[in-house]
Amino acid sequence: MSAIHIALLGMGTVGTGVVKILSNHAPNIEKKVGAPVIIKKILVRNPNKTRDIATDAQIVTNFDEILTDPDIKVVVEIMGGEFPAKDYMLAALNAGKHVITANKDVVAKHGRELFEAAEENHTDFLFEASVGGGIPIIRPLKQCLAANKISDIMGIVNGTTNYMLTKMTNEKMDYGDVLAEAQSKGYAEADPTADVGGYDAARKIAILASIGFGARITLDDVYVEGITNITIEDIEYARELGYVIKLLAVAKQDEHGINVRVHPAFLPNTHPLAAVNDVYNAIFIKGDAVGETMFYGRGAGELPTASAVTADIIDVARDIRHNVSSRILCTCFEQKPIYPVNKTESPYYIRLLVEDKPGVLAAIAGAFGAQQVSLHSVIQKRKVGSATELVLITYRVSDESIRLAMNTLLGMSIVSKIGNVIRVEAEQIS
Amino acid sequence: MSAIHIALLGMGTVGTGVVKILSNHAPNIEKKVGAPVIIKKILVRNPNKTRDIATDAQIVTNFDEILTDPDIKVVVEIMGGEFPAKDYMLAALNAGKHVITANKDVVAKHGRELFEAAEENHTDFLFEASVGGGIPIIRPLKQCLAANKISDIMGIVNGTTNYMLTKMTNEKMDYGDVLAEAQSKGYAEADPTADVGGYDAARKIAILASIGFGARITLDDVYVEGITNITIEDIEYARELGYVIKLLAVAKQDEHGINVRVHPAFLPNTHPLAAVNDVYNAIFIKGDAVGETMFYGRGAGELPTASAVTADIIDVARDIRHNVSSRILCTCFEQKPIYPVNKTESPYYIRLLVEDKPGVLAAIAGAFGAQQVSLHSVIQKRKVGSATELVLITYRVSDESIRLAMNTLLGMSIVSKIGNVIRVEAEQIS
Repeated sequence: MSAIHIALLGMGTVGTGVVKILSNHAPNIEKKVGAPVIIKKILVRNPNKTRDIATDAQIVTNFDEILTDPDIKVVVEIMGGEFPAKDYMLAALNAGKHVITANKDVVAKHGRELFEAAEENHTDFLFEASVGGGIPIIRPLKQCLAANKISDIMGIVNGTTNYMLTKMTNEKMDYGDVLAEAQSKGYAEADPTADVGGYDAARKIAILASIGFGARITLDDVYVEGITNITIEDIEYARELGYVIKLLAVAKQDEHGINVRVHPAFLPNTHPLAAVNDVYNAIFIKGDAVGETMFYGRGAGELPTASAVTADIIDVARDIRHNVSSRILCTCFEQKPIYPVNKTESPYYIRLLVEDKPGVLAAIAGAFGAQQVSLHSVIQKRKVGSATELVLITYRVSDESIRLAMNTLLGMSIVSKIGNVIRVEAEQIS
Repeated sequence: MSAIHIALLGMGTVGTGVVKILSNHAPNIEKKVGAPVIIKKILVRNPNKTRDIATDAQIVTNFDEILTDPDIKVVVEIMGGEFPAKDYMLAALNAGKHVITANKDVVAKHGRELFEAAEENHTDFLFEASVGGGIPIIRPLKQCLAANKISDIMGIVNGTTNYMLTKMTNEKMDYGDVLAEAQSKGYAEADPTADVGGYDAARKIAILASIGFGARITLDDVYVEGITNITIEDIEYARELGYVIKLLAVAKQDEHGINVRVHPAFLPNTHPLAAVNDVYNAIFIKGDAVGETMFYGRGAGELPTASAVTADIIDVARDIRHNVSSRILCTCFEQKPIYPVNKTESPYYIRLLVEDKPGVLAAIAGAFGAQQVSLHSVIQKRKVGSATELVLITYRVSDESIRLAMNTLLGMSIVSKIGNVIRVEAEQIS
């Protein structure tokens, strides 16, 4: 069969990886598809830039040269950013071309529009690389777990923060030092907000929750808390108590509806996600039939991400070869209520600095009790200057009740500081 | 669109699960497929048996009633066993019906014949549930990792033995007691050979290696060693040295060719597979682009296995709906050399009972040295009656050299017993 021609938008890290893989594995990919896959054109901003890798593709600077080329059946968007990436993808879909993207920003914000365009134009729109880098997760969730009602998705989906938390845990480095190191290694950006603020993870969990729950979840639906307040003390207390602290992206579906959030959490050492360290990512999924499953691997990087993009290319090429498209459409066909974070429930870890005098513990327990917050344990007590550090683990309680209890504590003269408040996930304390 | 009619062969544990899922999730599955999926007929041996679950399907005892029914487009084989399951599947494929199976025995032994029949008849032949129960692994390996050259597949793919080894490790129970307990819980069969002898795992790794390496690996190509010789002493020494003992199914592809084997192994505590406990399964895969990935979940059971079978049903139903088939054919198109286990290399753990007298260690080290086996460490030494137990870890060495060294040791009067010899996997001792 005649070759399948594709175009790349962007020739950065991931683009270079895709060029390498399609070239190195050409004979195998041709066998799998039943036809050779050829990169005909690559859109770049600066055609004069020196590049690591040679390619026979034509380098272009004007997207129209791709859009109007009838040979090009597949457009692979790996330029990143919201615009013009989204406009290019929409134009390509409307021109009847299949679109593949690694762009979590665009999928999380403009997914609906792109899916609808794909459906109208009978084209494929695939985005395996948008979550979890090389980890197969979109296709398994859409296809392999299609027979399940998914109740829980919990992921470590941001490599930068997982690297930082792992360093803090294993080497007792503090937040500032570990951030500086991550920046010097290129794991964190000069402005690290998207990672450490949890926004990158929020985009990814919005995408996973949409597929898993079959409902449209956008970035605005996700509650986000970053890791900037996590201290070495919290990590040490977690360790003493049998937990690790991870930045978790959590999506739950229960009788109240759907709740989606990103925040640091205490996770029991025995949980499969607890052993996911460094820049590795993993997504833990619970379904009514399959039970608990987990998908683990590298969440970023040239070749892992390119592995996922190229898998999508092979899939679309197989569809072209078999003259079929839109085999697996958007499955977000349900309207489901989304409930706010203040209605979510979990046990909480609370670290307080209080006056060191008789009756303090009783007064604090009373303040919690007034908000129906029961204490599971008061675990540690150590001197910090003239004050005492108290570490509490509550029973399962709502976010709302914890906020009210914290307000009460802040008004008490015996409480000099609320050190931290962190959710405890995947733990039955009741 | 009109309904898609399917037939089940068998109504045991997995069949009951499939009936439940297709009934409970009917509206969702209909939306995903674009047409209702209806079980028209179920083949059973004894139609008078009382069953847990009601079904509108017609219960039949003669396979011809399914084979000759033109309404039935998909045959789902969940009866198990080699025959007549294989003959029924072949007949169904030759009658132009799509076939789905959970049968590792048939896929591992007769895969080629069935794939060829599927290809000739332009039908789908899917078998996601044959390995890893509910864990998505066949589809991810075929599709999501299609752009990779896979070098390593390492799996914990037998739940019974993993349960037993976990119990031995955590509760210091010995092999005989834990086997009896597993049998009483229904995790192990009255004749446990298929599980504890490693044969079940061997079938599964043959299937995974075939897909991962793109070459036909049959059961006969797999070296098999079970867990029957693992003692509580070995497990305790492993723990002291920072390892766990797991029954690993290993497939490697390197410059010498392909090697596939099942055996107990020392696995470092830090390896992602080391935390896979109880009846859970996991498959760890290394590819040149994706790096290290792992897929984790329940490897057996009514609903997990039915989850995988139903995912295949949905996939085939989508193909029928879009009038396409054989989109993803057998990818075992390469002839690759398979090299025998005696050419494989790894560090080894060796436990010996030796005479307790001066010069013994030097004599033993000399015997190893004569076979070019270098000792990395001599870790433990304790009195067992009048003898001494020696625990050695070697550097990386061939299986052949270890066998020769063991023969030499057996001929030495100072060696009263070779306690055990176990490979060390995923560890760089060099």
